[in-house]
Amino acid sequence: MSVCTQYYPDEPTAPVVKTSAVPGPESVKELESLGKVFDARPAYFMADYEKSKGNYIVDADGNTYLDLYAQIASIALGYNNPKLIEAAKSPEMIRALVDRPALGNFPSKDLTPILQKILKFAPKGQDKIWSGLSGADANELAFKAAFMYYRAKERGYNKDFSSEENVSVMKNAQPGSPHLAVLSFKKAFHGRLFASGSTTCSKPIHKLDFPAFEWPHAEYPHYQFPLTENDAANRAEDDRCLKIVEHLITSWSIPVAALIIEPIQSEGGDNHASKYFLQSLRDLTLKHGVVYIVDEVQTGVGATGKAWCHEWADIQPPVDLVTFSKKFQSAGYFFHDPLFVPNKPYRQFNTWCGEPARMIIAGAIAQEVQDQNLSAQCARVGDYLFGKLEALQSQYPEKFQRLRGQGRGTFIAWDLPSGAERDALLKSLKLKGCNVGGCAELSVRLRPTLSFEEKHADIFVDALSKAVAEI
Amino acid sequence: MSVCTQYYPDEPTAPVVKTSAVPGPESVKELESLGKVFDARPAYFMADYEKSKGNYIVDADGNTYLDLYAQIASIALGYNNPKLIEAAKSPEMIRALVDRPALGNFPSKDLTPILQKILKFAPKGQDKIWSGLSGADANELAFKAAFMYYRAKERGYNKDFSSEENVSVMKNAQPGSPHLAVLSFKKAFHGRLFASGSTTCSKPIHKLDFPAFEWPHAEYPHYQFPLTENDAANRAEDDRCLKIVEHLITSWSIPVAALIIEPIQSEGGDNHASKYFLQSLRDLTLKHGVVYIVDEVQTGVGATGKAWCHEWADIQPPVDLVTFSKKFQSAGYFFHDPLFVPNKPYRQFNTWCGEPARMIIAGAIAQEVQDQNLSAQCARVGDYLFGKLEALQSQYPEKFQRLRGQGRGTFIAWDLPSGAERDALLKSLKLKGCNVGGCAELSVRLRPTLSFEEKHADIFVDALSKAVAEI
Repeated sequence: MSVCTQYYPDEPTAPVVKTSAVPGPESVKELESLGKVFDARPAYFMADYEKSKGNYIVDADGNTYLDLYAQIASIALGYNNPKLIEAAKSPEMIRALVDRPALGNFPSKDLTPILQKILKFAPKGQDKIWSGLSGADANELAFKAAFMYYRAKERGYNKDFSSEENVSVMKNAQPGSPHLAVLSFKKAFHGRLFASGSTTCSKPIHKLDFPAFEWPHAEYPHYQFPLTENDAANRAEDDRCLKIVEHLITSWSIPVAALIIEPIQSEGGDNHASKYFLQSLRDLTLKHGVVYIVDEVQTGVGATGKAWCHEWADIQPPVDLVTFSKKFQSAGYFFHDPLFVPNKPYRQFNTWCGEPARMIIAGAIAQEVQDQNLSAQCARVGDYLFGKLEALQSQYPEKFQRLRGQGRGTFIAWDLPSGAERDALLKSLKLKGCNVGGCAELSVRLRPTLSFEEKHADIFVDALSKAVAEI
Repeated sequence: MSVCTQYYPDEPTAPVVKTSAVPGPESVKELESLGKVFDARPAYFMADYEKSKGNYIVDADGNTYLDLYAQIASIALGYNNPKLIEAAKSPEMIRALVDRPALGNFPSKDLTPILQKILKFAPKGQDKIWSGLSGADANELAFKAAFMYYRAKERGYNKDFSSEENVSVMKNAQPGSPHLAVLSFKKAFHGRLFASGSTTCSKPIHKLDFPAFEWPHAEYPHYQFPLTENDAANRAEDDRCLKIVEHLITSWSIPVAALIIEPIQSEGGDNHASKYFLQSLRDLTLKHGVVYIVDEVQTGVGATGKAWCHEWADIQPPVDLVTFSKKFQSAGYFFHDPLFVPNKPYRQFNTWCGEPARMIIAGAIAQEVQDQNLSAQCARVGDYLFGKLEALQSQYPEKFQRLRGQGRGTFIAWDLPSGAERDALLKSLKLKGCNVGGCAELSVRLRPTLSFEEKHADIFVDALSKAVAEI
């Protein structure tokens, strides 16, 4: 059964690029007008979502691209998906949009069923949720939960704040505003607000000129590929990095309350962490009383062949907090330990406490991924695509270095010898009708939607083999 | 012409409370179920938005309240407003919901007209926008803009980063991660993330256990009311506070890059700042090269009798950044100086760069406020209501202390002698069918929607006079 045929009978059958450059003249004109009121410099082109369908995005010039970037890895089911259109037209959605509730103070009767639908899709071992608005927001809310949990353990969960805490906190001073750290990893990306930005360590441009907390970055393992042929070296690399993590936890100038990690560092270059590494972090965090947060903002929702990427590692006991956003459209964190509900109300709180309109979309996405078994489809299509890329790799080993993502669905990446060649490849692919993104300095990352099929993989590989031959 | 008659011909004519306690039994039951997966402790009741209409919110027990709190001051036009329902059903909205664009990389053809509609409602002197997701997010994005601007002035707008900056920033260290501060005010509320939380100074519970930046809080003027009878004392209070501001700017251990202020501190107790104070801050910020940010998250969008509250102060030259959220549904900041666009793309950036679904709602709200002249209506209804409250004040001077908001539309507040009496009054009002919120320790704050009319004021004042007589 083909999901695409079912969803998108009128999806284009192939990409078409009519303009000699991208963005084309109409996009350029419209971006100029947008640029007068909004920073439009990062725009690839002006998109026409009315005409986009399934795996294909259309621009203002009528160019039609097979989309393997999908709004920076944020479209789960493809463009103009009928199930999402149905959700968008539902009476619950209209209410969520026009009567946006302050969900903490005046929750809607609609909320419980929406959350239950989302929680049916929660990572194994997690059964509660707190809602935010974006990946950065989700991570910062998780940090708040972690800090409250950490201090409650020190203080006693039901013990009240001291008057010294109540006074000092109003001056942003200790002990009410404690010096506590979140440990993250080099090349990590967890968002661009101030606390999330302090854990992000991908590129200087993401962080320059912003004050940061003095929080530590450990080393994330850098594996040799293919993984199956480099077991010993990669295990040694894991152990090297684990030592650094433990050293930082025990020696950093500020107590480390939490650790946050992406199971695959995405923005930072599609760096994978092994099952052994992720499980060992569980052991270390338990040993040292550190909250374990897994950031599934980019890796979550099916593309790796499981609903949540860290499920591949079967971490036991389950991690403490799992953050999500992007392809799930809604954002927040899953958890299971009731001690992560703060001891008093209004401590984890804000006006909206989430976005019900996006929660409805998340519920519809979760339902469809489950109904259509789209994670399994990603696993299957990913294997097919990976095989094709291995064939290209043996033809052009220089242009397909460190090919990674085997057995991780369509969540695939590889390196070019230089940033210039990577950029040239992405540009050439665009002119051949494939919208593809990069990450880190040298990598191409594939992030198609979950409705990507073998036929799309064929179109992409065809364009890719031509583009590679050219550069 | 009555806006309510036009909008809400089938709005209830009076509140009805059928249960002997609020929340009633059905709310309690449903909140218990919600509480298993979501922190429902702060809930007032379980709301039924399907049945809510105009100025009336209905709960799961069928109680109908006249709503003067309006989702923590976040509903502009009343429940199930027909113009917003129209916007919610529009093809642009469906696209925004199902094909959520990464607005920075793949902006939609729909975006420019949406932004133009929003910008028609921008505060005087502002003509550009950057978009966020919530009040806290808007303020932190404004801080980022301010820090980049401040460092660009020091470095030279077009000068590149030094290698020392590029290296140190990856360690969260100076000079790449500079020590810079945002100055805010005691009792301020600017959100609850980590940087916004460092500027928030309302209640310990909002901040306890979270690391904070060591940023300073100046004193916000504490006036005597009525303002017209206390000119000299209040001017002296302004001058006292201005001295503190200047002292902190020139002496704080970390350079002060920006100042953020609410024209009326809302969460912190409805503390008003005079035209003289707000203008003098402009003079001080210019003198010392500090970015001037006005937080209009709660005060914006008509309720004070102007589109934006700080327009009452006619600050010249206009402030640098104006942040918004809540009643506008969309969030972000307005600005005018092109130097607040960072020198390189991708510095002020994230996956979504705003929420187009909420921008569409914001555009529809802006249009309607302008078409129906709802700011002027708020001014008129506010004057009417204020007169009634003054009458009650002369009857119960103890229960109506520091009555404030004269000439500021329906943005009205007063103090009770104690927190216990304030809480008792709010509870009694709820049982009489009026949903009203508090702020700070002693205050009642009125935050009805812009469709609140004289007839609603009459109903409220009737309930209030009974409730006051009882406590």
